[in-house]
Amino acid sequence: MRIALLGGTGDIGEGLALRWALHTQHDIVIGSRDPDAAHDAADGYTETVADHGRERKLTGFENAMAADRADVIVLCVPPYHVADTIDSVADKLDDSDVLVTPAAGIKRDDGGFQSHAPSAGSVTALVADAAPDDVPVVGAFHNLAAGRLADLDAELGIDTLVVADDDSAKRRVIALAEDIDGLRALDAGGIGVAAEIESLTPLLLNVAQNNEGLRDLGVRFR
Amino acid sequence: MRIALLGGTGDIGEGLALRWALHTQHDIVIGSRDPDAAHDAADGYTETVADHGRERKLTGFENAMAADRADVIVLCVPPYHVADTIDSVADKLDDSDVLVTPAAGIKRDDGGFQSHAPSAGSVTALVADAAPDDVPVVGAFHNLAAGRLADLDAELGIDTLVVADDDSAKRRVIALAEDIDGLRALDAGGIGVAAEIESLTPLLLNVAQNNEGLRDLGVRFR
Repeated sequence: MRIALLGGTGDIGEGLALRWALHTQHDIVIGSRDPDAAHDAADGYTETVADHGRERKLTGFENAMAADRADVIVLCVPPYHVADTIDSVADKLDDSDVLVTPAAGIKRDDGGFQSHAPSAGSVTALVADAAPDDVPVVGAFHNLAAGRLADLDAELGIDTLVVADDDSAKRRVIALAEDIDGLRALDAGGIGVAAEIESLTPLLLNVAQNNEGLRDLGVRFR
Repeated sequence: MRIALLGGTGDIGEGLALRWALHTQHDIVIGSRDPDAAHDAADGYTETVADHGRERKLTGFENAMAADRADVIVLCVPPYHVADTIDSVADKLDDSDVLVTPAAGIKRDDGGFQSHAPSAGSVTALVADAAPDDVPVVGAFHNLAAGRLADLDAELGIDTLVVADDDSAKRRVIALAEDIDGLRALDAGGIGVAAEIESLTPLLLNVAQNNEGLRDLGVRFR
């Protein structure tokens, strides 16, 4: 499987790239608006993975080229860049691809972090609206602390929740998630319930902020 | 400490009553609109706890009498009964009491369970609006599966998230939660972020519904 991480120079992209590169045989392609930044990030991740004993060659391209080469495309961009990122790669996508969104809308005020969903109801629904009609959309990887994911010495032992309306695309992403050591993927239903998953992201930030010794939090359902 | 569970004949009330009666010295008072129902439930819980080797006497009263006798009052009623239940006990509450709300607004459609917050933003905020001004309000115990809580042979090993604007009331409820074996209480911030906690309840239902072998789910932050 070839996986493109669009906006893969950012922190969640880094974490997913490193984990997939270290634990799987999947080809990992880093995308960015800036091809040089993508190239540099890919080289850096290649080095980090080599430091952990595995020779893998990650590659970097401008987002559209990265998407063109991949079977699964993960939108590692903030919610306000989701729509324009999809626009910039739309003609490279078709019904054999899967578009994955890990983003959650968050606002912060004096009370803490709060969910700030787009008018579509959730970022996942926004992605589904913006994606070409024949391209299946999956929400996943929302609730993984990027710092912990990128620290290859950190054990995970946590869950990710996966939502999609297309069962085959959902199963593909669940399998990719479970390829990462210590990550369990749970089916949370369809895109209509994505808001509840995206709400967990600000909650994790609030819990980490208010309790000593809890940083880079994840969650396990039990 | 004396704890009143208003609407304590229902499933979450049963679970909290049994756990506190079995694991602590706190006096547990069951409240109901119907005093006979409260009395019967208290007798039943007393018997269940005795079956687990502990002689405790739980008592049952009409909600206002139960509230009058207690230091901590837990509103174990559905969201649409929160306001009228508070009205019915308001003159028994004062600033030495703590009012606790475990309720979450949930709706269900074809897509699954979804958060359905009242116009106040969360059930916790609704309770804070409805409570007398001097009575501190704490949100807690939202994400505990009632069936698992009431099964005294079931291990918990899960977390509950606690929100309040009054720190002293919050600490009191965190301590009460941690008196229950296997339950860890985490400070999730103020009432302004309660919606994110209440959203976790429908999420747990969706995850349980979509994954084999996961029933009566709770959550652990890690």
